[in-house]
Amino acid sequence: MINIGIIGCGYWGPNLVRNFNACDTAGVIGVSDLREERLKFLSRLYPNIKILTKDSDEILHHNNIDAIVIATPVLTHFPLGMEALENGKHLLMEKPMTATAEQAEVLIETAEKKGLTLMVDHTFIYTGAVRKIKEVINSGDLGDLYYFDSVRVNLGLFQHDVNVIWDLAPHDVSIMDHLLQQRPKAISATGVAHFENKIENTAYISVMYDSPLIGHIHVNWLAPVKVRKTLICGSKKMIVYDDVEPSEKVKIYNKGVEYIKKREEAYDLLVQYRTGDMLAPRIEMTEALNLVAAEFVDSITQRRKPLTDGQAGYNVVRILEAANQSLRQGGKVIRL
Amino acid sequence: MINIGIIGCGYWGPNLVRNFNACDTAGVIGVSDLREERLKFLSRLYPNIKILTKDSDEILHHNNIDAIVIATPVLTHFPLGMEALENGKHLLMEKPMTATAEQAEVLIETAEKKGLTLMVDHTFIYTGAVRKIKEVINSGDLGDLYYFDSVRVNLGLFQHDVNVIWDLAPHDVSIMDHLLQQRPKAISATGVAHFENKIENTAYISVMYDSPLIGHIHVNWLAPVKVRKTLICGSKKMIVYDDVEPSEKVKIYNKGVEYIKKREEAYDLLVQYRTGDMLAPRIEMTEALNLVAAEFVDSITQRRKPLTDGQAGYNVVRILEAANQSLRQGGKVIRL
Amino acid sequence: MINIGIIGCGYWGPNLVRNFNACDTAGVIGVSDLREERLKFLSRLYPNIKILTKDSDEILHHNNIDAIVIATPVLTHFPLGMEALENGKHLLMEKPMTATAEQAEVLIETAEKKGLTLMVDHTFIYTGAVRKIKEVINSGDLGDLYYFDSVRVNLGLFQHDVNVIWDLAPHDVSIMDHLLQQRPKAISATGVAHFENKIENTAYISVMYDSPLIGHIHVNWLAPVKVRKTLICGSKKMIVYDDVEPSEKVKIYNKGVEYIKKREEAYDLLVQYRTGDMLAPRIEMTEALNLVAAEFVDSITQRRKPLTDGQAGYNVVRILEAANQSLRQGGKVIRL
Amino acid sequence: MINIGIIGCGYWGPNLVRNFNACDTAGVIGVSDLREERLKFLSRLYPNIKILTKDSDEILHHNNIDAIVIATPVLTHFPLGMEALENGKHLLMEKPMTATAEQAEVLIETAEKKGLTLMVDHTFIYTGAVRKIKEVINSGDLGDLYYFDSVRVNLGLFQHDVNVIWDLAPHDVSIMDHLLQQRPKAISATGVAHFENKIENTAYISVMYDSPLIGHIHVNWLAPVKVRKTLICGSKKMIVYDDVEPSEKVKIYNKGVEYIKKREEAYDLLVQYRTGDMLAPRIEMTEALNLVAAEFVDSITQRRKPLTDGQAGYNVVRILEAANQSLRQGGKVIRL
Repeated sequence: MINIGIIGCGYWGPNLVRNFNACDTAGVIGVSDLREERLKFLSRLYPNIKILTKDSDEILHHNNIDAIVIATPVLTHFPLGMEALENGKHLLMEKPMTATAEQAEVLIETAEKKGLTLMVDHTFIYTGAVRKIKEVINSGDLGDLYYFDSVRVNLGLFQHDVNVIWDLAPHDVSIMDHLLQQRPKAISATGVAHFENKIENTAYISVMYDSPLIGHIHVNWLAPVKVRKTLICGSKKMIVYDDVEPSEKVKIYNKGVEYIKKREEAYDLLVQYRTGDMLAPRIEMTEALNLVAAEFVDSITQRRKPLTDGQAGYNVVRILEAANQSLRQGGKVIRL
Repeated sequence: MINIGIIGCGYWGPNLVRNFNACDTAGVIGVSDLREERLKFLSRLYPNIKILTKDSDEILHHNNIDAIVIATPVLTHFPLGMEALENGKHLLMEKPMTATAEQAEVLIETAEKKGLTLMVDHTFIYTGAVRKIKEVINSGDLGDLYYFDSVRVNLGLFQHDVNVIWDLAPHDVSIMDHLLQQRPKAISATGVAHFENKIENTAYISVMYDSPLIGHIHVNWLAPVKVRKTLICGSKKMIVYDDVEPSEKVKIYNKGVEYIKKREEAYDLLVQYRTGDMLAPRIEMTEALNLVAAEFVDSITQRRKPLTDGQAGYNVVRILEAANQSLRQGGKVIRL
Repeated sequence: MINIGIIGCGYWGPNLVRNFNACDTAGVIGVSDLREERLKFLSRLYPNIKILTKDSDEILHHNNIDAIVIATPVLTHFPLGMEALENGKHLLMEKPMTATAEQAEVLIETAEKKGLTLMVDHTFIYTGAVRKIKEVINSGDLGDLYYFDSVRVNLGLFQHDVNVIWDLAPHDVSIMDHLLQQRPKAISATGVAHFENKIENTAYISVMYDSPLIGHIHVNWLAPVKVRKTLICGSKKMIVYDDVEPSEKVKIYNKGVEYIKKREEAYDLLVQYRTGDMLAPRIEMTEALNLVAAEFVDSITQRRKPLTDGQAGYNVVRILEAANQSLRQGGKVIRL
Repeated sequence: MINIGIIGCGYWGPNLVRNFNACDTAGVIGVSDLREERLKFLSRLYPNIKILTKDSDEILHHNNIDAIVIATPVLTHFPLGMEALENGKHLLMEKPMTATAEQAEVLIETAEKKGLTLMVDHTFIYTGAVRKIKEVINSGDLGDLYYFDSVRVNLGLFQHDVNVIWDLAPHDVSIMDHLLQQRPKAISATGVAHFENKIENTAYISVMYDSPLIGHIHVNWLAPVKVRKTLICGSKKMIVYDDVEPSEKVKIYNKGVEYIKKREEAYDLLVQYRTGDMLAPRIEMTEALNLVAAEFVDSITQRRKPLTDGQAGYNVVRILEAANQSLRQGGKVIRL
């Protein structure tokens, strides 16, 4: 039985409790939050949680707690995570893992030294849609990967502490990193803040991988319509992943282009288009956070790396950090 | 009566003839093309065209021809255009106007010196949709302009001589320049070529205007679905222009966000969302090229600048040129 | 303070409790259900409900209960409703009000005699979308009403006791009756049962009003896609109400047709089409059941007829009954 | 070489000429139309047509003409068709084949007696979409057929001589008859005329086949949006055919419902839902009329029945006739 303690109980907190309690071999026994009313709300929903406290130390140092979930604002992730590891607790961190790539590296090292599980809650990786896309890519059906293009825009949910890159792009960057499994070479990002608080609400991120693979992400809090659409193009097939669709979220197009060298003129190429069926595979509807909780518990029990481990968390933070750096320098290309 | 001569008769040629012939005070009397079969095809469609020739000089120097339309590949635009002006002919150039911004400047100067009309066929500016959007912006209904975001992707029509920026982006850049009426400060672009011919088929262009206005364009020949969607966001209203929609191409959302300073804490801001009606105004269905032809003829007759004059052509080429330069340097920011 | 008792606590039960408790001047003090586990579930959610019983009589006869909500299967609506009225309780009945039009009439009479409020929970009437459409029709903007066409199809939720007409059509019929405010003259319905249980899962209902107004409803449990779309056509404007759309549920088209008599030939008519703007008005997002609860409580307190009174309930049942009768007779037209 | 003569050259005429001329073994040598300007228009488009006449007799009696296409208003189909057959000409008739089912029977008999090909231009049967659906049904993939539901509505193209049933429903009825291959048992139809000319612009047709198969068609000239959507439901799979979609017109849903008898309680049934992949097969884009022309010519040459023969034409007319009869009698069920 893995006893879980959660630090930070905002919007996501009750979902974490519910899904860990649904695990056969785990349960939440303690939660801390600075806000009295959140603790009260939680105690009504889950009267069985033993420790409800405003002091995160009570959770971090509690002897019966085996594993800690950090669900606080990103700036506090690193110190809280370090303390958890140093107290010998396994660690699940909300995304983005840390505020800097360097902090992520330190956490990874510490967890390794201590032999503890370190996992990041990249929830989207556990959705039926992304798992299906990963399966298609792994099967080789897409062929060589050509580009990853993602748009996540909507009106609303302006954050007060982080810009739209740190708020929305972790979703797309974690999906991109998970699907492409490549190291980015360079990043450029542009964006603007339209209000006095100087927090960017509109941003475009280009991620250059080994040519000819490119990634691009458009995140925006100031759009009249809700769009969550990703194109993933391969040499053999192409995928449209539309998360706003209630069903048929993933569409696999048997479409492509081929350049064929004409014999005589070596530099004149013939284009051939290919269009075939479109398949929208059945997507499993299991709640993603349910699988996140199970993966965390299983990776602790089985002493193995989780699917979204510290390295995955680092990869995402490194891209976000570089994107932010580029954005602040007017789009300057940042080499990695 | 304005007698028109057309140089270059590809896909667009017959449309040009048809629409100029539809003008009361103009008509096409000569067409040149290097390809015999195009001339034959045209003569069957329009048996009344007097001069059909493989030699563009016959058109450029013909005494009865008052105005020339250049509809050849972009690399030939400048020399042909110069010769037309030097022969005292009014000039309508297909987009993009020239291969470099410098060439565009020379043409503008020459036309001014000679007192001749110089116009560029930025067809989209004359569509009912763009005219309606322009009207809304001019009325002040959008408020301050926040961003212009355009996506034009599809499978197909790979070009052999120019990349996707020179092929597709002129549409978006001309619309953006026309609607925003601002000078870009810097440009960065990324993109990739996936085939041996090294011609980029996927590109992203960021256009930085005076803060906080930004433009962004995604053009792509290698997408499984056809998208032609533009978001134009203002402080008061937002527009979605979807050119793939058969009707309701323009949707005006009475939506917005306001940041309100809370009295006591000067740096804590309160976000207020506003959502109201959405209006899809009736769009006039007149063929855009019909209005292009009329504007060219009228601006000659009335001795006035056309709506899409040499300057508009220059503005577009300058952005394309800088975008291409940035693309070739891995996304380096190009200051203008 | 109005004390509410609820009889029947299925899927809808907890929503009823929540929304009545949200009223300032009302609260649920008793609930009965035959199923022990539903009562337990409710007691966990709402520990303050005083009476939780398997015996509906406890609710029907309780001195402190002022008003009763009947949320049981339709066959039991009439006897339970009658007993409630006879015990001097105000009455809110789930839709469809009763299993026969005659039963509805008896309830209406009894409530009148006793001076009690009788209301039917036609929830859709209280949605922002239907209220907006009603407002548009009342304003005269649609002109004369031409037809009402509604499609409500999906895969699933096969009922075991009633067919698709009694299950899904109450929604459309109640909306139609509320919007058109006309007495139907005749009804014909066709449909089929595809499984051994002989319960029709596919049905088409035509409702003939005074010419030239017609209503038509297609309800179906066996469709691969979810459709909930209603067309309401008037002589001046037309409405599309698409309840599956997350936003822009109501679209008002300024479109129409006019027949104009040519002077000389009296029976030759000229058709003129008119197309204008499309407006998607902002729809209020208040939960409909919240307004249902408030309307019930207010109509009791203010001793006035509720918006969806017994007569509205009768109108719906009469159409459903006739449609079912026609269906069973192979589509025979039933005159009303 | 089959020499074709066409009687009636309205909107469809030039398409017929173009597609017959595209056949290797056929060509149009004569066309008649009462309107001088249509003949002139055609002579400009196709200067090689030898006979252009206002007198249909010239076509019907011309020795060099082997086969006649009747593309006149429906009321004239029968007399013109009869005269063609009696003059020994093969016959292609525009849809609907005739104004009455009886006329269709006479034509079928006459053609058989004379050994001539009689075909009806049910164009939709030859589209890639309908051919693909037919292939899926024939393969048994859909299982038993449950229902056919078609909606064809739009604003516009009011006809002056026939109502919306005779104008639009031939498309849906011909597709339904072709796909289901069943004899209808009874028909009921409702509809209204909203203008003084008393021509119905809104109609609903129910077609009862052997239980539990039903067909339903909604045709409407007075709708604010264009819909051309057909649902075809089988026991194993379901199809949505959306002709307004530019691509992915046909979607095959691997979805279904099964009723399973629980052992003990014989009349209590358990519903099981099944949802799987959705496949949008590639649709061939060959112009349907091209295949119509080829089928007519081939069936003459090969002395075989065409795919859409006189019987298919009769089947469609019989349903239209009964639907109209029902409509005029207020929805009375017509037994066939």
